[in-house]
Formats: sequence, C-alpha cells, structure tokens
Amino acid sequence: MTDTLPVSTSQRIELKDITGQVRRAIGRMGLTDGHLLIYVPHTTAGVTINEAADPMVARDIEDTLNRLVPADAGYRHAEGNADAHVKATLVGSSVLVRVESGRPVLGTWQGIFFCEFDGPRHRRVELSVVGG
Amino acid sequence: MTDTLPVSTSQRIELKDITGQVRRAIGRMGLTDGHLLIYVPHTTAGVTINEAADPMVARDIEDTLNRLVPADAGYRHAEGNADAHVKATLVGSSVLVRVESGRPVLGTWQGIFFCEFDGPRHRRVELSVVGG
Amino acid sequence: MTDTLPVSTSQRIELKDITGQVRRAIGRMGLTDGHLLIYVPHTTAGVTINEAADPMVARDIEDTLNRLVPADAGYRHAEGNADAHVKATLVGSSVLVRVESGRPVLGTWQGIFFCEFDGPRHRRVELSVVGG
Repeated sequence: MTDTLPVSTSQRIELKDITGQVRRAIGRMGLTDGHLLIYVPHTTAGVTINEAADPMVARDIEDTLNRLVPADAGYRHAEGNADAHVKATLVGSSVLVRVESGRPVLGTWQGIFFCEFDGPRHRRVELSVVGG
Repeated sequence: MTDTLPVSTSQRIELKDITGQVRRAIGRMGLTDGHLLIYVPHTTAGVTINEAADPMVARDIEDTLNRLVPADAGYRHAEGNADAHVKATLVGSSVLVRVESGRPVLGTWQGIFFCEFDGPRHRRVELSVVGG
Repeated sequence: MTDTLPVSTSQRIELKDITGQVRRAIGRMGLTDGHLLIYVPHTTAGVTINEAADPMVARDIEDTLNRLVPADAGYRHAEGNADAHVKATLVGSSVLVRVESGRPVLGTWQGIFFCEFDGPRHRRVELSVVGG
C-alpha cells in the first residue's frame, strides 16, 4: 500500500506541517494498524517530527539551520544549493511512524514537517506501509 | 506488540543509555526475530545509537550540540527551550533496530541512547514491533 | 532475509556511494517488494541518502561536517576520534528504503552513501528485510 502527497512551499527554506495530509492519506489507504514510512525522494528537502503547536518552533529550526549551514559559505557544488543538500543530510529523508486505529501515533505536541531547503517548489512525499 | 519505557534524567541535556531497558522489553514482548521501532513521542528529546563503552563519548555529543545550538542564541519560541527543539530535529526522534534470537543486533561498541534536551524530566519511549 | 556489504574507504572522512552494492544485494536476497533496512553497526560512521550525480555534493557534506565538528575541538573521549562519534549521531546510523519490483525506490538524483568519519577503514553495512 502506497500513496503520494503533493507539497508546495513559498519560501527557500520552509518547514511545512503535513500531519493533516498524512492523516487523510492513512484514511484513503485504509490502514488501521501498522507502520507508515514517510519518505522524501528529493535531495534538497527532508522530513522531521517536532512541535506543531507554536509555529515559531519551525521558524527557529529554519533559522538555526541557516546559521549552521549558510547558503553562501563557499561550496564546491556549483548549482547554488549545496547548503540545501547538507541540510537534507542533517535532518534526514524519512520518518517511520506507528499507526493505531487508523491514526498516526504521535506525542501530544508532535507534528510531521516536510522540510524544504531549496524552495519555493512543488514536491512530493512518498508514503508506504511497512510490513503490510 | 508494543511497550513503553519510562526514562528519567537529572540534567538539562543528557544522553542516557537505555540499551538494557530495551533488551528487557524485547524479552517481555516475547519478540525473537524482527525489527523494533524505538520512538520518542516528545519534541525536546530524541534517540541515537552511539558508543556505550566510554561515557565520555556521550558527554562530547552533549557538549558539541550545546556549542552548535546554544540555549540562549535568541530564538522566537518563547518557552526558553527552542534549542532543545532544534537539537531534537538534528538527532531524530526514532531508531529502528533488528532483533535476532531475542536480542537487538547492535555493533560491538553500540548502545541506544535516549537524548534529553530539556531536562531533568520524566519521559517515555514507545517501542513497537514493525511488521509483526 | 539479511545480507552484509563490505565497504572500504581511503580518507578519514568519506561519503562513499553504495547504491550499486545495495541494488546487487537486493537481487541476491531475491527481494522483489518490501522495505530494506540499511544499518551501520559502527559508532564512527553513518549512512545518508543524498545526490549521487555530482560528487561535489558529497565533498560539501564532508567539508561542512568538518567545519561544524572539527577533529581537534577539545573533546573528553581520549581516542582522537570524538568528532567522528558526534558526526555519526548528526547523520544517523540507518536508512529505510522501499523496494519495488526488485529495485530500491529512490528519487531521480538520490543515492545511498556510507559515511566514514574515522577512516580509512574496512567496514560493513548490514541489510535486513523489514516485515519479511
């Protein structure tokens, strides 16, 4: 069982909450209990789980990643997005979540964030049931 | 098959070796062969696999994370723990380990560490068998 | 179903593309559809998914990790490779990929990279089918 989520961003670096999209996809897939792999097939984007209540947390993550890995730090890759590749490796390209009774099992404050590092762009996130 | 581990810390940032707790939980769950998801449902904590032999390695990881993401670097999130959220995204909120003959398959020097970034606190770690 | 890949490096820090090795192992294992855990049992190495087309991307990731976590930043762990342990935690010790029709499902530009942080060394990568 697989599904694909379209994700669009409006900033160069942008953490976008996709928890609602993931929940609806689980419903479409008819998955009640199991594990879902949330996979980003891009090399200048990632996915993370963090606080979804206060949107300032996502802004702080964006700012800190830009401070640690600036866009203009003198890279070898000549396409102007080397920093985005490095950020993707620091954050990671997938998360695995448990699904119970048709819902992702997340902590109280947790949401699932697509992490755009070279936007704005139209992207996709691949979902697949593991062991299903 | 699922289980929950309680984890308590005594420092604001603290990598705590939970390998023994995970081993005992695998026994309780009766899992002999498969994969176990070790998931942190908190947004200011994470989990990593690293050297368990010399405890100084965990201290170096804590120190380096504090150097890269200081507690007082001027964040937007107003709860005083923005750095802990950023650290959680850098380290990640889950690891997946293989279990064989009732034991986690780890390298010689590897242990599983709960990573507290906004302690001391009482936390929990969620275990679930993937594909079970 | 499990398999082991040997990986040798020639530099202290080196991202090495192992996508071809993973593809061949999937063939040997006879896995057509499912998920494969690519696991590094070492504490001074990791694994990541990033761009495989331009090798300069891997060099930029190596350089940036060396800038953020220098080898000689004054660590407690006395074996001279504390930075390598920290880098391993930042990058992560495993990735999970979907396999469809006998091939890993990767994005157009994605490859799988073993990340050596304390080489040159002879290492191994453990593969296992999740939910198989």
